[in-house]
Amino acid sequence: MAPPSSDQPDEAAGSGAISKVLVVIAMQTEALPLVTKFELVEAATEESIFPKGAPWTRFHGDYKGLHIDLVWPGKDPLLGVDSVGTVSAALVTYASIQLLKPDLIINAGTAGGFKARGASIGDVYLASDVAFHDRRIPIPVFDSYGIGARQTFATPNIVKELNLKVGKLSTGDSLDMSPHDESAILSNDATVNDMEGAAVAYVAEMFSTPAIFVKAVTDIVDGEKPTAEEFLQNLISVTMALDQAVTKVIDFIDGKCVSDL
Amino acid sequence: MAPPSSDQPDEAAGSGAISKVLVVIAMQTEALPLVTKFELVEAATEESIFPKGAPWTRFHGDYKGLHIDLVWPGKDPLLGVDSVGTVSAALVTYASIQLLKPDLIINAGTAGGFKARGASIGDVYLASDVAFHDRRIPIPVFDSYGIGARQTFATPNIVKELNLKVGKLSTGDSLDMSPHDESAILSNDATVNDMEGAAVAYVAEMFSTPAIFVKAVTDIVDGEKPTAEEFLQNLISVTMALDQAVTKVIDFIDGKCVSDL
Repeated sequence: MAPPSSDQPDEAAGSGAISKVLVVIAMQTEALPLVTKFELVEAATEESIFPKGAPWTRFHGDYKGLHIDLVWPGKDPLLGVDSVGTVSAALVTYASIQLLKPDLIINAGTAGGFKARGASIGDVYLASDVAFHDRRIPIPVFDSYGIGARQTFATPNIVKELNLKVGKLSTGDSLDMSPHDESAILSNDATVNDMEGAAVAYVAEMFSTPAIFVKAVTDIVDGEKPTAEEFLQNLISVTMALDQAVTKVIDFIDGKCVSDL
Repeated sequence: MAPPSSDQPDEAAGSGAISKVLVVIAMQTEALPLVTKFELVEAATEESIFPKGAPWTRFHGDYKGLHIDLVWPGKDPLLGVDSVGTVSAALVTYASIQLLKPDLIINAGTAGGFKARGASIGDVYLASDVAFHDRRIPIPVFDSYGIGARQTFATPNIVKELNLKVGKLSTGDSLDMSPHDESAILSNDATVNDMEGAAVAYVAEMFSTPAIFVKAVTDIVDGEKPTAEEFLQNLISVTMALDQAVTKVIDFIDGKCVSDL
């Protein structure tokens, strides 16, 4: 029940130079190019920090002045597909915060974009805000809890230096968009939508860990093509744009304090 | 990435008499009567097993031959309402399994019921199966992952002895029911629906911990009354029926092995 107290500031929120970055990604396809780029190595089974049974995967290594841990929720043990969505993302984020104590979290991934709000395939956004669009609880105050709108960690210098687009992110556990979802996404004022961001933000805020959200547009939600088809068609090429943007963000972060971002 | 291996059975799945029971509940209102009934005491802040920042709450104590830990996700630090839904339930279940190593999980709570399938207000169900109804991912295999249908731990003797109703449970993060949700709930063949069960089951299965689901009907989903109104109206009285059923289940469990349930 105890709310985060402010009398004993969390180390993760300290103002020293960033040394440990946790990158949280949902899909292996999105993650592997970054593993290569940063020359990360997979944590062997015997040195796994995650408990036996969890399919969560960690690669790690040093890159310039940073230690990078890149985690993803791994393949579903029965079905063999990436464990996408809010529950898996929240769990691997929680376990990683507890075990790795990162100074900063970068949640990177692909997203849907709204052309009515200026998004195009391949655009990379930094999310200014996150919220859920599929947690409707029509009881006063519970409604706000369900939506879970929160501002992300402000990074005005990253935005300025790297010339990234900025928009609000809305998260839900479905790849398609029902009329109820659409209405909630509009109400969330979102430019991009994904399946993990708001859950990662929820856990990061719980432990006062600054988190930023880098999302690359694989499909146009308010366009003509079916989402799943467009998503699969653009996944590989857009992942390259995503990984370039994440690399630029990490290069920018190197040597800085969180308050310099 | 490693799937649960079977060569080294988890202690939690052992066949000795059950000694540690973890009760996972979503709302304080549902939990407090059980705290009183089992004379549990709240874990003081300084002996909290949960990390600082998490609002998760634990009461614990000995009852007959069992040690009971009763956890709930606690109040949202900013909004003050119960942290309902799949993300919070998955997180507190995960942390509790890791820290408490229970022999058995009981997820108890209120639920919606379908009168077309025989449910009435105050009925208490044991869920035979769980699934999600708001995780639509229309890509082959990902669709099954999203639905996440799984059988619960089989408890034929509890069903027979305690004369509980048995039905399938469908889980989603909204208290209302959109047409898309309704179609998925029907497809899940569900008699009752809630906002946590399938997430608790997902985490329990990950760590081979037997889990059962006791759900009491507060509102009729296919009835005339608005869900939120009916839910709030019946919450207190149905919680009593829920707590009686949970007490009967725990009395039955006392002294038994998981294979005797």
